[in-house]
Amino acid sequence: MGTLSSPTEAVDLSHHINKRSKARHPSPLKDIIKFMNQDGMISLAGGSGAGNGELVALARRLTDRLHAPTYRYDCLLHPGNTNAWAKVVGLLCEEDDNIIVDEYVYPSAQALWIPMGIKAVPVDADAEGMQADKLEKMLATWDDGGRRGKRPHVVYIVPVGSNPTGLSISKRRRQALYEVCVKYDMIIVEDDPYYCLQYPPYNPKAADATVDSTAAPLPTDEFVASLIPSFLSMDRQGRVIRLESFSKTLFPALRLGYFIANPVFIERLLRASEVETQDPSGLSQLFVLQLLRQWTIDGYIGWLQTLQSQYRQRRDWLLGAIAENFELMETDTGSSTSASKEYRACIRGSDGDVKPVFSFVDPTAGMFLWTKFDLRAVSRFSELSDKQDISDPEQTFADELWKAWCSELILVTPGSYYHPWQGPEFTATAARGAEAATCDFRLSFATPTKEQIELGQYVGFTLTL
Amino acid sequence: MGTLSSPTEAVDLSHHINKRSKARHPSPLKDIIKFMNQDGMISLAGGSGAGNGELVALARRLTDRLHAPTYRYDCLLHPGNTNAWAKVVGLLCEEDDNIIVDEYVYPSAQALWIPMGIKAVPVDADAEGMQADKLEKMLATWDDGGRRGKRPHVVYIVPVGSNPTGLSISKRRRQALYEVCVKYDMIIVEDDPYYCLQYPPYNPKAADATVDSTAAPLPTDEFVASLIPSFLSMDRQGRVIRLESFSKTLFPALRLGYFIANPVFIERLLRASEVETQDPSGLSQLFVLQLLRQWTIDGYIGWLQTLQSQYRQRRDWLLGAIAENFELMETDTGSSTSASKEYRACIRGSDGDVKPVFSFVDPTAGMFLWTKFDLRAVSRFSELSDKQDISDPEQTFADELWKAWCSELILVTPGSYYHPWQGPEFTATAARGAEAATCDFRLSFATPTKEQIELGQYVGFTLTL
Ligand SMILES: Cc1ncc(COP(=O)(O)O)c(C=O)c1O
Ligand SMILES: Cc1ncc(COP(=O)(O)O)c(C=O)c1O
Repeated sequence: MGTLSSPTEAVDLSHHINKRSKARHPSPLKDIIKFMNQDGMISLAGGSGAGNGELVALARRLTDRLHAPTYRYDCLLHPGNTNAWAKVVGLLCEEDDNIIVDEYVYPSAQALWIPMGIKAVPVDADAEGMQADKLEKMLATWDDGGRRGKRPHVVYIVPVGSNPTGLSISKRRRQALYEVCVKYDMIIVEDDPYYCLQYPPYNPKAADATVDSTAAPLPTDEFVASLIPSFLSMDRQGRVIRLESFSKTLFPALRLGYFIANPVFIERLLRASEVETQDPSGLSQLFVLQLLRQWTIDGYIGWLQTLQSQYRQRRDWLLGAIAENFELMETDTGSSTSASKEYRACIRGSDGDVKPVFSFVDPTAGMFLWTKFDLRAVSRFSELSDKQDISDPEQTFADELWKAWCSELILVTPGSYYHPWQGPEFTATAARGAEAATCDFRLSFATPTKEQIELGQYVGFTLTL
Repeated sequence: MGTLSSPTEAVDLSHHINKRSKARHPSPLKDIIKFMNQDGMISLAGGSGAGNGELVALARRLTDRLHAPTYRYDCLLHPGNTNAWAKVVGLLCEEDDNIIVDEYVYPSAQALWIPMGIKAVPVDADAEGMQADKLEKMLATWDDGGRRGKRPHVVYIVPVGSNPTGLSISKRRRQALYEVCVKYDMIIVEDDPYYCLQYPPYNPKAADATVDSTAAPLPTDEFVASLIPSFLSMDRQGRVIRLESFSKTLFPALRLGYFIANPVFIERLLRASEVETQDPSGLSQLFVLQLLRQWTIDGYIGWLQTLQSQYRQRRDWLLGAIAENFELMETDTGSSTSASKEYRACIRGSDGDVKPVFSFVDPTAGMFLWTKFDLRAVSRFSELSDKQDISDPEQTFADELWKAWCSELILVTPGSYYHPWQGPEFTATAARGAEAATCDFRLSFATPTKEQIELGQYVGFTLTL
């Protein structure tokens, strides 16, 4: 035995693989590929399309550096997390399954599964992310095959700088969630394109300061230590499927990323890739390969740090602009260790009273700010609530507000785009069990300029009053 | 009314769309995209991923030049015909469907559908391709929902330089097939990556001559007139879905191509693309866009003609090498108009008798030669046939021969890879209804050099004797 601990084997999780995926046969061409590379072979058999081996090896090195998985994993290239998620659903889910998700879900992910009759089962989050005790209760009390159908066996999660909520799950919350998943034999699909875009919390006192994005990057180990550990890094059984994408760290049009998962899952995903997509674009592979060769892994991680500080700067602009127009009050979340603070943005009325307008959790990663509007003191909302013929005044008000912003040339994304699909009877605010007299909007600070952000804030939010 | 005939609308074929595909909702983000491009809009809503409009417009121009469809069609980019076919199955097929195919099928296409419980229904071909009367008889006598299950409603076809048979369907055969498809309400999926690689028949007298690949290309109209008209060009109802790929005309690693189909199908395919793949790689799009801009459509068609002559040259090398080692006898196909000739490759035994070794149809497109071996005079095959414990002597012999070639460093593709999957009870030669005492191999002349082809022919085929 060596002094370094050798990786353990994943436990057998093949019972999670669905019927269709189990029925896939290896492409017959596989037999022939062995022979193709034989020395001196005259091939009249045609070409083959295996992915770039060096790029896969680099993906493994990056994985070891960032996540140091403790079990024997494999990597497989894919053409972006959109396709990766489609393949994972193709691997694990049957029609009419239920999938555990956050309170709000990335729309393309669920647009994929809704036509399969699959429903979302949302679990409430706080500022530390999905609540492990709520997940456990949900699973413990699930009446398998009863009214709600099959017990879920898959958790879909965007654990860092979530799209749309901007939330990042804290380390201790992850540990608790992982143990629940072990106990209830769940597969965790970690769709994590924003992982390397983690940055420090908003500091009102230093908000005006320009983030120095030319500062020398931290040494890789220090940088890695500053990141919340991924679910993958905690996984001792091979029950995490991690989806990595270069979309947010290089550019989306690359359509390139990779799966990290146990070898049994990866083998089935490879079978699906052979018949559904083949390899990602060779030009995209070549671009990333050349870049990683030239930059080295450490150089790439340095680049991620530059990106980090740019997103941090943009977050600061946005929160700074909010602080200009509102009084920011920190909410007591009751959690001393949570890194992410929750704020209420308030105005002082002519009567001197402080009225909350909206609340948000400071995003410490990614590019999104999730705003929850408090409609209790909004007269137009009261008006709508009093009307007999309006069944969902929260949604009606949200639509009106969104349109009003649009006509002022301010575009944000309606929160309703992210409501988990639980079936047609659960779409209205009350039926979803959402908080009464609230509505949500997602703000992206990825692209607008500082001036646009400031103007947007001002014109946009004063409209709410 | 103008003097130019304006395109007609496709007939309503939406009843072909399967349940899952009908259930897809447009991405909610679509609503927002309208607003994104508004002048002066400050977007806090994030990015969008629409394909390159100029490239789609070029794809349409190329389509008009090559196929001049008579109904109002749409184009949609996709990441290669592998994925395009997966999306078409996702659009049209239910579990346990039956799909009409050629006698031999491209393996990845059926590896996709086998796990869905879908079976192939092969229709015999002659040198002009799939036989329309056989297709008609099959459909007319199908007992819908009976022993064989649902009546097929989809024809999957590789109509030019087919993979694996190298066959191209003649014009009059296409017309006959199309009418059968109209009569029986079939959708034709035309997977046609080799369409522009059509070339003249093999001319034994000029076989030694080097094809002049530097000759000036024909004017586009003349070139187009020299091509067999596509199913798309004959389609008056919108029942052809044409899959175009740049894999064979530029390079496979581009992972880029486009669908041509009626607008109703294209809209559903777009919905699937949004959640399954998003756009093809932007680098690949950019590469093809820049190339088409610089070359123009006519220049690209000129390039295709250069490719044509290169494949023709390679076909000539291969058939020339066969002619060196065998006596080539033309088979009378009974068809005077068929462009593709059928040959038997024979040897003269020590007794002076002429023995047929294998037969093939001269490929007049693409990169494959399909060889059917005649085992009647092969002593090893007789030996195997006499053994009680060998249930499929044809397959056993084919396996032995393939391995013998491999150990001589000659690699060809076993015909068994292309057998249509009709269920586990129909895999043996007799059960498939295949001709007794025959076995097939596919030879690709896409990559080997002239010397390799000659050596391969010599060493390889003398082994059969
Ligand atoms: C959570 C999440 N998953 C997946 C994607 C899409 O990733 P890709 O571009 O790699 O397909 C995004 C991008 O918006 C995202 O936010
Ligand atoms: C008939 C056929 N369809 C599809 C493909 C794959 O095409 P693409 O590279 O565009 O996925 C091939 C390539 O071998 C083929 O021969």
